Amino acid sequence: MTEKMIYSFGAGQTDGSADMRNLLGGKGANLAEMASLDIPVPPGFTITTQVCVDYLKQNDFPEGLWEGVKEQMAWLEDAMGAQFGGDENPLLVSVRSGARDSMPGMMDTVLNLGMNDKTVAALEKKSGSRRFAYDSYRRFINMFGNVVLEMDHHDFESKIEAMKQRKGAASDLDLTADDLAELVDEYAALVKEKTGSGFPQDPYEQLRLAIEAVFNSWNNDRAFTYRRLYHIPHDWGTAVNVQCMVYGNMGEDCGTGVAFSRNPATGEDALYGEILFNAQGEDVVAGIRTPEPIVSLKEKMPECYAEFESITEKLEAHYKDMQDMEFTIQNGRLFMLQTRSGKRTAAAAVRIAIQLVSEGVIDRRTALKMVDPDSLDQLLHPTIDAEEELKVVATGLAASPGAAVGRVVFSAADAVERAEAGDPVILVRQETSPEDINGMNVSQGILTARGGLTSHAAVVARQMGKCCVTGCSALNVRADEKVMRVNGETVLEGDFISLNGTSGEVILGEAKLKQPELSGDFATLMEWADEIRTLGVRANADTVTDSETAIKFGCEGIGLCRTEHMFFEGERIDYVRAMILASTEEGRRDALDHLLPMQREDFIGIFEVMKERPVTIRLLDPPLHEFLPKTEEDMEHVARLLGVGLDTVRNATEATEEQNPMLGHRGCRLVVTYPEIAEMQVRAIIEAACEMKSRGVDVLPEIMIPLTSGVREWAFNRDIVYDIAQKVIEEKGVTPRYLTGTMIEIPRACLRAGEIADSAEFFSFGTNDLTQLVYGLSRDDAGWFLPKYIEKDLIPRDPFVAVDREGVGEMVKIGIERGRARRENLEVGICGEHGGEPTSVEFCHMMKMDYVSCAPYRAPIARLAAAQATVTHGSYQTVEIH
Amino acid sequence: MTEKMIYSFGAGQTDGSADMRNLLGGKGANLAEMASLDIPVPPGFTITTQVCVDYLKQNDFPEGLWEGVKEQMAWLEDAMGAQFGGDENPLLVSVRSGARDSMPGMMDTVLNLGMNDKTVAALEKKSGSRRFAYDSYRRFINMFGNVVLEMDHHDFESKIEAMKQRKGAASDLDLTADDLAELVDEYAALVKEKTGSGFPQDPYEQLRLAIEAVFNSWNNDRAFTYRRLYHIPHDWGTAVNVQCMVYGNMGEDCGTGVAFSRNPATGEDALYGEILFNAQGEDVVAGIRTPEPIVSLKEKMPECYAEFESITEKLEAHYKDMQDMEFTIQNGRLFMLQTRSGKRTAAAAVRIAIQLVSEGVIDRRTALKMVDPDSLDQLLHPTIDAEEELKVVATGLAASPGAAVGRVVFSAADAVERAEAGDPVILVRQETSPEDINGMNVSQGILTARGGLTSHAAVVARQMGKCCVTGCSALNVRADEKVMRVNGETVLEGDFISLNGTSGEVILGEAKLKQPELSGDFATLMEWADEIRTLGVRANADTVTDSETAIKFGCEGIGLCRTEHMFFEGERIDYVRAMILASTEEGRRDALDHLLPMQREDFIGIFEVMKERPVTIRLLDPPLHEFLPKTEEDMEHVARLLGVGLDTVRNATEATEEQNPMLGHRGCRLVVTYPEIAEMQVRAIIEAACEMKSRGVDVLPEIMIPLTSGVREWAFNRDIVYDIAQKVIEEKGVTPRYLTGTMIEIPRACLRAGEIADSAEFFSFGTNDLTQLVYGLSRDDAGWFLPKYIEKDLIPRDPFVAVDREGVGEMVKIGIERGRARRENLEVGICGEHGGEPTSVEFCHMMKMDYVSCAPYRAPIARLAAAQATVTHGSYQTVEIH
Repeated sequence: MTEKMIYSFGAGQTDGSADMRNLLGGKGANLAEMASLDIPVPPGFTITTQVCVDYLKQNDFPEGLWEGVKEQMAWLEDAMGAQFGGDENPLLVSVRSGARDSMPGMMDTVLNLGMNDKTVAALEKKSGSRRFAYDSYRRFINMFGNVVLEMDHHDFESKIEAMKQRKGAASDLDLTADDLAELVDEYAALVKEKTGSGFPQDPYEQLRLAIEAVFNSWNNDRAFTYRRLYHIPHDWGTAVNVQCMVYGNMGEDCGTGVAFSRNPATGEDALYGEILFNAQGEDVVAGIRTPEPIVSLKEKMPECYAEFESITEKLEAHYKDMQDMEFTIQNGRLFMLQTRSGKRTAAAAVRIAIQLVSEGVIDRRTALKMVDPDSLDQLLHPTIDAEEELKVVATGLAASPGAAVGRVVFSAADAVERAEAGDPVILVRQETSPEDINGMNVSQGILTARGGLTSHAAVVARQMGKCCVTGCSALNVRADEKVMRVNGETVLEGDFISLNGTSGEVILGEAKLKQPELSGDFATLMEWADEIRTLGVRANADTVTDSETAIKFGCEGIGLCRTEHMFFEGERIDYVRAMILASTEEGRRDALDHLLPMQREDFIGIFEVMKERPVTIRLLDPPLHEFLPKTEEDMEHVARLLGVGLDTVRNATEATEEQNPMLGHRGCRLVVTYPEIAEMQVRAIIEAACEMKSRGVDVLPEIMIPLTSGVREWAFNRDIVYDIAQKVIEEKGVTPRYLTGTMIEIPRACLRAGEIADSAEFFSFGTNDLTQLVYGLSRDDAGWFLPKYIEKDLIPRDPFVAVDREGVGEMVKIGIERGRARRENLEVGICGEHGGEPTSVEFCHMMKMDYVSCAPYRAPIARLAAAQATVTHGSYQTVEIH
Repeated sequence: MTEKMIYSFGAGQTDGSADMRNLLGGKGANLAEMASLDIPVPPGFTITTQVCVDYLKQNDFPEGLWEGVKEQMAWLEDAMGAQFGGDENPLLVSVRSGARDSMPGMMDTVLNLGMNDKTVAALEKKSGSRRFAYDSYRRFINMFGNVVLEMDHHDFESKIEAMKQRKGAASDLDLTADDLAELVDEYAALVKEKTGSGFPQDPYEQLRLAIEAVFNSWNNDRAFTYRRLYHIPHDWGTAVNVQCMVYGNMGEDCGTGVAFSRNPATGEDALYGEILFNAQGEDVVAGIRTPEPIVSLKEKMPECYAEFESITEKLEAHYKDMQDMEFTIQNGRLFMLQTRSGKRTAAAAVRIAIQLVSEGVIDRRTALKMVDPDSLDQLLHPTIDAEEELKVVATGLAASPGAAVGRVVFSAADAVERAEAGDPVILVRQETSPEDINGMNVSQGILTARGGLTSHAAVVARQMGKCCVTGCSALNVRADEKVMRVNGETVLEGDFISLNGTSGEVILGEAKLKQPELSGDFATLMEWADEIRTLGVRANADTVTDSETAIKFGCEGIGLCRTEHMFFEGERIDYVRAMILASTEEGRRDALDHLLPMQREDFIGIFEVMKERPVTIRLLDPPLHEFLPKTEEDMEHVARLLGVGLDTVRNATEATEEQNPMLGHRGCRLVVTYPEIAEMQVRAIIEAACEMKSRGVDVLPEIMIPLTSGVREWAFNRDIVYDIAQKVIEEKGVTPRYLTGTMIEIPRACLRAGEIADSAEFFSFGTNDLTQLVYGLSRDDAGWFLPKYIEKDLIPRDPFVAVDREGVGEMVKIGIERGRARRENLEVGICGEHGGEPTSVEFCHMMKMDYVSCAPYRAPIARLAAAQATVTHGSYQTVEIH
C-alpha cells in the first residue's frame, strides 16, 4: 500500500485542505480549501510534491500514478459531462506547478491541454466561436511547444508577428478566425520542423508529457536561482495541479484578473487589483497588455464584482490574512483559480498586521509574526527629499515604494557586472522576466516600460524590498543600443537616474535622499515587539552620532564600541604612529599619554548619550600595521612629522606586515606584548566613568578583551584591567560600575569558556571572526568563490550573512553552556553583523543570550526578529546587570 | 595540626623515603632512601617542597617551621656530638636546594654554614689545620655573600686574585693559612662595604637567611628558564636540605667526586666518574679544576674504592637504574652525598636499557620507558664522515656525542642573535655556567676550554642532545675580543668550525657529515617497541627518496604524500602556470593533460618502493598564487615562455593574491572552482595503481581531500574521485584497491565529522592547520610573539610543537567520536608535524588512532613514544585496512 498520490478538489469531491500545503503545494491546498468553503473553483486534482520528489529521483512515474491520473480524468469527465479528447464536448485542462512556498513564474504551466485537430472543431461548435477555438489552439501549441517540447518561444512569436504584418493587423485581436487557423497550421509545421515529429494529437500523451515537464521544471535554472535567493530547500519538489479550463477570452462578458484583498503597497483596506477583459490569465502576469483597474469590473459586471467582493471577504476572514487571488470570468460566471497570502511591501505588512489586530481578526503575537523582519529594511531606507527641485521626466506605476539612485543599465548581465564593480545601478527593461532575477537582485531599483502593478517586475521588486516603477509607457527602451529616450531626453548606459517608488516618478540625475520616519504603525509594531521579546538589542556604535542613532532605533545599550576607530581621527593617528614606532616602552608610554585625554573625552561623549545604559567597549583589536602608512609618500610624511628617519618608518611598516593578519598580532595579543596600550585605554574608560559618576550619572562600561584564546591569557589581560581600574578608583575617590569580560571569537575560547567564566563577567560572541575560524575561511578572500559554493548548493547560505548553526552555532552553544555552568549570571551577547539578521537573532534567542548587538539601523529588524523568536520558542530569564 | 614540614635522615633517624620525591625533592628523598639502606650519609633533614610553596606565597616562614628547624638542629648536635656555633666542636652544615626533578646548578647552595670568627678557631683546633679552617671560612663568606647577601661573586674573586699576585701564588693551594686568614678579613670588610653591615656571626641567623635564599632561588631567572625549557611546572617549589658538612679538603686522604654507575656517554657497564683530591664538591661541578678519573681512587685508597663499588652496586640494584652519585671522602672515610638516576646520552640510554633487561634487572616494558623518545634524535643525527681529511686543531673531552658544524660565537647572547638570523652556531666558552643555558639551546654544539665530563657544559649538552667538547685546554678564548687562538690558528667570530662529540676533536672549517647507523641496541629497542605498540607509524614523504628513507626508519606506509611538491620540478611548473593563467576550462585541461603522465610516473615511483603499504596522497592543497612568479623579472620570463602578455601574468598574480591565504582559496576549494585539477590527479593515481596491479603489486593509495569544512563540500569532491576512478577502472579493466578520505583540519569538519564519515573511509587530522584555526593563530606570524606567551607562562607549550590537548585535542576527540559513531571501521591518523613529537604521539594513542605520520627520520621517536603510550595506557584494536 503506497501513500495517496493524488487529491481531488471541487465538484463535490474535495479531499485536501489548506493545512496540507507541504504535500499539495500552496496552490493545490488552497484550491481544496476554497472548494470546501463552497467558493466556485473549476474542479481538478493535485499530484503531491512527494510524487515529484520520487519522480525526480527515479526519472519515471511512480507505480500506480498514471492509473490514478486516468481515474481522476474519468471523474472530471463525469463531473463536467465532457470528454477528454472528445469530439462533442471536449474537456480541456490546465497543468500547473504549485510548490510549498510560492515561486511566482519560476516553474512551468500548460493551458488548454486536450486540444487537437479534432477537439478544436468541437470547441468551435460548443463555444459558437471559431476565432476562440483557433485562438485557444494556437496558444496551446505555442505553450506546449515551449514548455514541454523545449522549443524557442520566439520562433512562435515571429510566425504571429509575420502574419500580423502580412495581414496588416495592429494587435492579436485584429487577426481573424481564419488567420488563426492558418497560424495553427504554421505552428504545427514548425513543431514538425523543430522536433522531427508532429504535434502530439493524443490528449493523454499531452497530459503525461505536461505532468513530466512540470515536475522537471522544479530543477530549471530560474527555479534553482529563486530558491537560492529565498532560501527554499531544493528537495521539496512541486505539486502538479490538473484543473478544468475556464476561459476569460470567450468574449466581452469574459475576463481574467489578479486582485489583493488589501493594497499590497500601502496596506490600505480596499480591494486592489486588475482585470483584462476577453483575455487569458497569462496575459496579466506576463505584463504583455496593460490591464484595467479592478473597479472596471464593478462598472461592467456589477453582480460579478459583488460576488467577488463577498468571496474576498470570506477568504480573508477564513485565512486571517490579506489574500492574493486569481480569477476568471467565463461568460459572466466567476471562477476562483487561486488564493494565497499576498506578498506585500514592508509598509503594507506593518499596516495590515496592525489593522487585523484592531479588527479583532488576529492577536498581537500573530501580528508580529506577519511581518518579515528583513523587510523592515525597506522602511528604514531613505526616500526622496521632497524639498528639492527634481527633473521628473516621466511617471509610471508606483509598484514598490522607497527611492533609488543609480546608473542606468539595460540588461541583467550589465547590472551584475557594474554592481560587482561597486556602482549603484538601476535596471531599466521593456518588461522583466524571471531570467532577470539576478540582475534585479543587485540593482538599487527597477524601471519598466510595460506591465502593471502585478507584473513580474512589481511582484518580485516588492518582495525584494526594492524600489520599482513599472508601466512607464513614455520610455522608449533600446536595450540593444544601450540607450533609452524619454520625453525628448536621451539616457545612456551609465547615466544617473533616480526613482521614486512611492509616486512612480522617474527623475534624471542623482536625487537627494531623506531619512525615514519611524512613527505610526511602525512604532506600534515595535512597541509590541519590545513588550514581548526576551532578547535585548544593543547597537554597534563607535561615536556620539552612532550612539544617538542607536537610541533613536530603540537600542538598550551599546554592545560593541570599537576603540580603534577613534585612533584614526585628526592628530590622534600621529600619536598612534609615534607609539608604534617607539622602540622602548617609555617611548610608547609618552605617545599614549597624549592619547589618554582624547580617549577619555570620547568615552565621556558616548556616556553622555547612553547614560545608565551598558556600553561594551572593546580594547584595541586590529593589528598595528593597519595604523602605519602604506605608500612611500605617506611614509615620508610620517617620518618628517615624527622627526624620525624614513628607514624607521619603512622598517616598522615592513616588520609589522603579516602573512595572515587575521591570525596575527592583534586583539589581546597586543596587550601581552605592549600592556601599556591597554593600561591607557582602561584608564581612559574608568576616568570617564568616574567623571560621569561625579556628575550623578551612574554609567556602565563593560570592558571587553578581544581575541582571548585561553584562560591564562585572559587572566593576564583581566588583571591589567582590574589593577588600573583600582588605581584610578583610588586616585579619584569615586567608584563607578564596570564589568570586565571578553569576546569569544576563537574556537579555543569556546572550548575553554568554563575556566574563563570563572573571572569573566560577560561573554560577547564575535561571530564574524568565529565564522572565519570555524570554517577556516577568510571573509576578505572568499568573496569570489563563495558564490560558487552557493551555486553548487555546497553550503546552505553565506555563513557571514546568517549564523551557520551546524558549525559556528555549535561552538557558540558549547561556549555558553560551559561559561554558564561555571558562572550562572554570566552576561552573554553577540556583536558580529549576524546580530541584525533575523535567523541569527532567532538562534541567539534559542541560545538564551541576553542581547544581540547590531548596526543601529538594523535594530528594528533585530527587535522584531527577537519578538518572533519569543512567540515561536517562548521566553526565558535574562541576566540582571549589576 | 599542620602537615609535617621537616623530615630527618641518617644517624638512625630516617623518616623519609625515595617515593616521597614530590614532597622531599629528588635529593632529599634519595638521601633518606640511602640512609634506610645503611649507606653512609651525613645526617641532616629536609624541609618539604610544600613549605617552599607556602613560603613563596606569604613571603614568610610558615608558623612552626623555625621551631622545627631548631629542634632538628638540636638532634643533629646530639647525633654528631657537636655544637652549632660552638667553640669546642662546632657543627657545620650545608643548605641545598632539591626539586622534584633535577635542575642541576639552577638553584642555590650554601656550604660550611655555621662558621664565624669564633668557630673558625675551633675548627682549626679540631682539624689540626689552620689552613683548612680559614680556607673553609673564606669559601663560606664568599658563597654566603654571593647567594644570600646577593653580592657579586667577582668582587670576591678579584680579592683572591689580587692576593695571589701579591703573594706570587700560582693557584689557591699556594696560599698559606695566614694568607687565607688575611683574605677572610678582606672578605669581611667587603661584606661590610657592600651591605652596610658586618658578616652575620649568629649561626642561626645564617641558617634562617640561607633557607630563605634557597626558597627564593626557585624563582630566579636561570631556574625559570630551565623549567620553561624542560616543561617543569612553576608551582612545584624546591625542598631544602640541611646536612652536616663533611670535608673533602682536609688533606690528601680527603677528596670529593661525582660518579656514574655506568658510562653516561656510551652506556658501558663500568664505574665512570671523577675525583678531586683535597677539594670541596663545588670544585668538581663548576669545572674550575680538571679532576682525575675515578680509577685514581683505586690506586690511592683501594679500600675506599671497594666500598664505593659495593655501594654503587647496591644502589643500582635498589633503584633498578644507572645512578649518578656524589661522594666525599673525609680523612679516608666515605660519605655518600647524593644519588639519583643518571642523565645519559641517547646511545647510553638505549644500551643501558637493553643491558638491564639482559641482566634480568628490569623487563622490556620498563626498558622501553627508560629511553626518552625525543633523545633518539641524537642517534638519528649525522656524524662526521671519517673518510674525509680533517683539519683537527685540538682535542678536548668527548662530553656529548654527535657532530656539529657552525659559526663560532663567544657569548650566549651572540649565539641567540646569530641563531635567530638563521646561522648555525657553535658556542665557544672558557667554561659554561647556568647563565649560558639559552645560548646553548640555540647552538649546534658547545666547546669549552675548561671543565671535565661532568662539568656544567657536559651535563647540560648531553641532556639537550647536543654535541659537546669540554676541557679543551689548547684553546685560548678571548670572549671580550671575540677571538680564540688554538695551536697557532686564530679563529674569529663567524668562522666555521666543526666538533666531533664522540672523539673530542675540534676541526677548522665545515666538516662533511655522515648519516647514522640504526643497528645493534638501537635496532633491538625499536624491535621491542614495534612488538608492543598499538599505534601505526607512517611517514610524510613526497618522493621516491623520502619513501626509501621511510622504509629504512621503519614506517609502515606513507601518511602524507603532498602532490604540490611535484608541481615545482623541472618543466612541470611551466604547465602548472599555464594551467593557472588559462582563462577557460579547456585551456586548463590542455595544461593538465601535459601534467598527467608526469604525475602518474611520480606515483608509480613511490608505489614501487611502498608496494602493498598504504600511501595517503593529498590532492593539491596550496593556494594557486604559490605557483606564480613574484618578481617582475620572473613574470617576464613566464610571459615569454608561455607566449602570453606580461599583463596576463601580472593580473593573474595580483588576482590570486590574498589577504589571508591560510584561510583562502586552497585545498578542496580549488576543486569546487576547478574540478579538472582533481580529475587529473585522481586519474594519475588510479592509472598508476592499475599499472602496478597489472605488474602484480596490489598497491593501496588512500586519496585524501584537503580542507574539508562540511558534508556537501566533501560529497562534491568525493564524487569526483569516485567518478574518475570508476572511469579509469573501466578503461583499464583492472580494479586496484583505493580508499577515499579527508583531512580533518578545520574546526567545522570536526563538528560535522559524523556526516562526513558516512562516505569517508578515513580521516587524517591535519593538526598544523587545526591548531592555527582553533587558536586563531598564524604559525608564520606568531614566531616573534609566541615566545612572550611562553615567557609569561600564558600557554604551557608552543602548540605547534606539542598538540594542545585542552583545545585542539578536544576538537580532535570530537571529530573521532562523531566519525566513528557513524563508521565503526573509520581509519584515523594524524599527519601534522605533531606526529613525531612524543607527547603528541601519546595523545594520538589515547585517542585510539590507527597511526601517526611524521617526517621519516622522526619515525623512530614516534615508534618508541607509541610503545611507551601502550605501556602507560594499554593497547586497543586498530582498523583492518581493506
